[in-house]
Amino acid sequence: MTSLRYRFLAVPILLVGFLMTPPQLLQADEGMWLYNAPPLKQLKDKYGFEPSKEWLDHLQKSSVRFNSGGSGSFVGKHGLVMTNHHVGADDLQKISDIKKIDYLKLGFEAKTNADELKCPDLELNVLQEIKDVTADVNAAVKPDLSAADAFKARQQKIEELQKGVADEKKGIRGDVVTLFAGGAYHLYTFKKYTDIRLVFAPEKQIAFFGGDPDNFEYPRFDLDVCFFRVYENDKPLASEHYLKWSDAGAKDNELTFVSGHPGRTNRQNTVAELEYLRDHGYPYLLQRLARLEVLLNSWSQRSESNRKKCEEDLFGIQNSRKARIGGLQGLLDPKIMARKKEEEARLKQFIQMQINNRKAKTPEETAELNAALAAFDVIAKVQKIRSANLKMSTLLEGGGAFNSTAFGVARILLRYADEMKKEPKDRLPEFGSTRLPSLERQLLSPVPIEAGYEILILADSLSTLATTLGADDPLVLQVLGGKSPRERAYDLISGTKVADLEFRKKCFTAKEAPNSDPMIALARLVDEPSRAIRKILETEVDEPKRQASSALAKMRAVMDAGNTYPDATFTLRLSYGPVKGYKEDGKDVPAFTTFDGLYKRSAEQGNKYPFELPKRWEDKKQSLDLSTPFNFVSTADIIGGNSGSPVVNTQGEVVGLIFDGNIQSLVLDFVYEGEVSRALSVDSRAIVEALRKVYDAGWLADEIQGKK
Amino acid sequence: MTSLRYRFLAVPILLVGFLMTPPQLLQADEGMWLYNAPPLKQLKDKYGFEPSKEWLDHLQKSSVRFNSGGSGSFVGKHGLVMTNHHVGADDLQKISDIKKIDYLKLGFEAKTNADELKCPDLELNVLQEIKDVTADVNAAVKPDLSAADAFKARQQKIEELQKGVADEKKGIRGDVVTLFAGGAYHLYTFKKYTDIRLVFAPEKQIAFFGGDPDNFEYPRFDLDVCFFRVYENDKPLASEHYLKWSDAGAKDNELTFVSGHPGRTNRQNTVAELEYLRDHGYPYLLQRLARLEVLLNSWSQRSESNRKKCEEDLFGIQNSRKARIGGLQGLLDPKIMARKKEEEARLKQFIQMQINNRKAKTPEETAELNAALAAFDVIAKVQKIRSANLKMSTLLEGGGAFNSTAFGVARILLRYADEMKKEPKDRLPEFGSTRLPSLERQLLSPVPIEAGYEILILADSLSTLATTLGADDPLVLQVLGGKSPRERAYDLISGTKVADLEFRKKCFTAKEAPNSDPMIALARLVDEPSRAIRKILETEVDEPKRQASSALAKMRAVMDAGNTYPDATFTLRLSYGPVKGYKEDGKDVPAFTTFDGLYKRSAEQGNKYPFELPKRWEDKKQSLDLSTPFNFVSTADIIGGNSGSPVVNTQGEVVGLIFDGNIQSLVLDFVYEGEVSRALSVDSRAIVEALRKVYDAGWLADEIQGKK
Repeated sequence: MTSLRYRFLAVPILLVGFLMTPPQLLQADEGMWLYNAPPLKQLKDKYGFEPSKEWLDHLQKSSVRFNSGGSGSFVGKHGLVMTNHHVGADDLQKISDIKKIDYLKLGFEAKTNADELKCPDLELNVLQEIKDVTADVNAAVKPDLSAADAFKARQQKIEELQKGVADEKKGIRGDVVTLFAGGAYHLYTFKKYTDIRLVFAPEKQIAFFGGDPDNFEYPRFDLDVCFFRVYENDKPLASEHYLKWSDAGAKDNELTFVSGHPGRTNRQNTVAELEYLRDHGYPYLLQRLARLEVLLNSWSQRSESNRKKCEEDLFGIQNSRKARIGGLQGLLDPKIMARKKEEEARLKQFIQMQINNRKAKTPEETAELNAALAAFDVIAKVQKIRSANLKMSTLLEGGGAFNSTAFGVARILLRYADEMKKEPKDRLPEFGSTRLPSLERQLLSPVPIEAGYEILILADSLSTLATTLGADDPLVLQVLGGKSPRERAYDLISGTKVADLEFRKKCFTAKEAPNSDPMIALARLVDEPSRAIRKILETEVDEPKRQASSALAKMRAVMDAGNTYPDATFTLRLSYGPVKGYKEDGKDVPAFTTFDGLYKRSAEQGNKYPFELPKRWEDKKQSLDLSTPFNFVSTADIIGGNSGSPVVNTQGEVVGLIFDGNIQSLVLDFVYEGEVSRALSVDSRAIVEALRKVYDAGWLADEIQGKK
Repeated sequence: MTSLRYRFLAVPILLVGFLMTPPQLLQADEGMWLYNAPPLKQLKDKYGFEPSKEWLDHLQKSSVRFNSGGSGSFVGKHGLVMTNHHVGADDLQKISDIKKIDYLKLGFEAKTNADELKCPDLELNVLQEIKDVTADVNAAVKPDLSAADAFKARQQKIEELQKGVADEKKGIRGDVVTLFAGGAYHLYTFKKYTDIRLVFAPEKQIAFFGGDPDNFEYPRFDLDVCFFRVYENDKPLASEHYLKWSDAGAKDNELTFVSGHPGRTNRQNTVAELEYLRDHGYPYLLQRLARLEVLLNSWSQRSESNRKKCEEDLFGIQNSRKARIGGLQGLLDPKIMARKKEEEARLKQFIQMQINNRKAKTPEETAELNAALAAFDVIAKVQKIRSANLKMSTLLEGGGAFNSTAFGVARILLRYADEMKKEPKDRLPEFGSTRLPSLERQLLSPVPIEAGYEILILADSLSTLATTLGADDPLVLQVLGGKSPRERAYDLISGTKVADLEFRKKCFTAKEAPNSDPMIALARLVDEPSRAIRKILETEVDEPKRQASSALAKMRAVMDAGNTYPDATFTLRLSYGPVKGYKEDGKDVPAFTTFDGLYKRSAEQGNKYPFELPKRWEDKKQSLDLSTPFNFVSTADIIGGNSGSPVVNTQGEVVGLIFDGNIQSLVLDFVYEGEVSRALSVDSRAIVEALRKVYDAGWLADEIQGKK
């Protein structure tokens, strides 16, 4: 493991001039820290806690990444993995479809290993090793290359490095991750697991009690947990690393840690980027989300079977909508923008000071400084290209105009056939050789495609295309072929064979995408303009922005003397902070809720959807200890992707399970705030109490408590 | 009463050349006919029915306009008025707020006249007389006037004509209505009633059974009815005209009539106008509706009290959303656009033929023909100005950026104070002297303003302003004053006094709008840009479009030999057509549903919201005749605004009550379609059966059946 700290001191001689400016202090408990650059100083200074290398290594290797977009952890020696119900929901849905039993609604408990239900396409990754490969990657990108060639050269190097560690037979996967906006590249070696079986899930109604109305709110009352088991060679995995369980749970003001995979933050963004998000990116995304939410809400209410078909999609949309509205509110707050402007001015001033500094500089150092100073303008210019292409790229390359699983599959089949004809180095990155096994598994997974639902969302998105470009636009006319959006969607979905697993297998094996299939023909029709806009974004936006951001990230790291962390990128991070209530509208919000509060909230909402209790929770109320802590809040710095992360105490024992942030935490996308922003967790005591008393799953409680 | 038919024959000599083109046949049962130009020929030819002048006059004077946007009819000799529950819902809400009893949820039955509950600000109008004033209005607009002056001159003449018949003491109101897009002006004399009391309303749950999911769908099961009583001098009105009740109800294939107030259709629109709606107007409106729907849905689910506060607004939004999506789907259907293009080509050809015709023409006739030919381009050009100003006009003059009752009130107070300083002829039309009594009543009505709800929607709309113009736009910076949208909305709503009735009275009486009130100050801040954009739309869009449309409307009327009807404008119209089922996806949809179907639909949806039945409907199921026809469909040509219209048979007896159209009928906005488009009604038999058996309101059933 190489420490990240040193590589940012590439221009150390310049530091002398900087010492006159006071270093920026991180906010209390701020940070999504890399495991190879943990916040040792902060923990020692503020909490007197010094985690050992072994402590960190154990927590790292007990942490699990759900490739579907969440976090988890090993909590038992037989490959038992804990995550959120809403992280596992995708898989619960797929299993329910296959088994024709609604496990999302009913919940599920395996009584024995033999009862555990296999997930059709779930992949879990466990981070084994981190290697800094920044120098290798940068060396591959010669300074005189065009942006397009630089992009290609870097991709090629990354591909090569990943291939170097990957070992399909041993289940070893290598991913080069980009950190500090291209300021660093680390090669992550994962152990990957693909035989994952469902062990336990509560009813969705208690996992997501309060539904969308209470989402991102606190106090909360959610048992948002489920358990899977990892198998190898058809046997439960003998976990080398797993977390011990805390029977005592967390206490008020106790220091806790969160180990998980925050998906994406934008804290290193320049003001121009934030303004782009504020004025273009977020409003357009919210507009699309609102349209979809209304469509699905209305359709799902027509019948119970409709509701089931789009339940998970609808949850995802509502969740994004609330998160983005929260983020946008932060961006629209002049105080927050003023703080970001100050930070930027400080960085600009720092770079200018280095340039003005009379110390002798190498030509490389001078070039680096000048590039950093110019970076602000480069990034600002790039935002204009981004916003000019926002709608078209979302509709075409983003697939927003052809919203359906069927189109997604058709495009993969088409591009797979096209890309496999090319030299490996010329392929789109998602068809790189290391990605193929995951791609194949995803493509050949036997998940049914719901025709009625697909027609609904495809028709709506075709309408969006028509109204965005104008119904007489040549591309629209070609796409619709003289039909109304609804008729065209009906023809496409009833005519395509991509829902048929055998057809997909045949195409994949033969590397062919027959134009006789109407959906593949549509994918082909839009492929040229779609690739064209992708290329514009890659070469005129992503690459210049990457280079500019990287130049700035280096300077920022120098300025902050390495005492920093990169923006979240769905890589494993360590956050920390005490369990702690907060104030809202002048009133105290206590850190903990209890089972008692759950029953009260349900009663005050008339026990009506989404506040009704599963029958078992009504029946077992008498036997439950109602004072059991249910959910709690802490100051840890988390964001979407952290869902399912374990919360551990200084002993490394599980005291809780992250499942949400409060509404005030939505600003964490851009800036840390510790006064009122809070991470929400399920208390470890609630999980055990519910398993034993509500679900008669004492065997599982025994397993996580190590009593078996 | 002057017949409309003749005034369109202004260029009769030109008709000769036209006889070579076959006249366009109206579609079967098409038309929202004016009472002074009823479809006598169609009724006689197709149905052998010849309504007498008395028959028509009686139906006209039994029809009631709800100024809040719906229709109704007198159905009893003591001023008893029937309409839809969803038309009366606004008033039910206001009464509930005042009485602190949720009559929307619980329903209401007065046992005696003394129990009837007064509506705080409802106004009903009954059309007494129609006079064609086209010549007077046109004479006031000299040909050499600029567009702005023409607009002003017309408004002034209209104001004068209205004043000529208005008599506040006698409750007589005069409205000059614009028909055929300015091709005709008729002076409507109304008897207006302002002492309206609630007599009966069922629970909203049965009135709107199936809620948004079943809205615009068929089969349906809604008792969407309520009854009011008109009072004069504190006594029930002695109704001169009221409709008899049909105990037998409607039969399959029986000819029926609908007398009501369709709000707005766009059938005379040119293709350029339809393209504007398709590519700009509707998509933008739908985008705003979706955003609001998501906001209110989410908020209303947080608590029962939230839900109540925005229930009616949410219904209105969902209703508009479905209607507009339906309309947009029609516009996106190439077949429908092709039909509209053919119609337009036919009209163009007709005009060209008249021009080419060698018959001698007066200079006026030549000018009229040339203007008509040029009109297509004028209208196309105007659409560009419309779309360029769409967002800003919606946000500013439309108030979309300041969504709240408080802002609406503040702006009226401000403009009232400003406008009353001007000469009457220079005032904005809504402050014309004939409008003032209604304005005053509306402004001084004791309806509470809900602070929490106002902050929610105002904050959201301020965010929309900021993201639409960009948060650094000078107007946005001024409007937000350094605050986030949420903070600013909080400050405005907690700081303003416009919610206080005494404050409103004081301002209104003194004709003053103090800048010390923050909401009035905001209204003043945006008043100049708001008026500026209104002026652009009035002079550069509305006026040229009115003139061009009027030129075309005249030609179209000549072409169709006067055998036509104008686009809907919330004026009283007569529609007709038989009770008739239709085919959907190859299956027959029968014309009638029954009470039995209601109980089945509820059961198949698990009796869950919005499909649960009110307790009384569960309790009384046994005593009901379950075979009673509940809802039925007919081919009558209706649209929004027709809600609450009586459906009568050839005897003029009430057989039903219009409450909705099916989803296929949403295309009626642009074009009539009689194969699958249907008007939905409550059957008269269901109303009586429910009143007697479910509500123990035999006295009311007796009253409408004339048994008392």
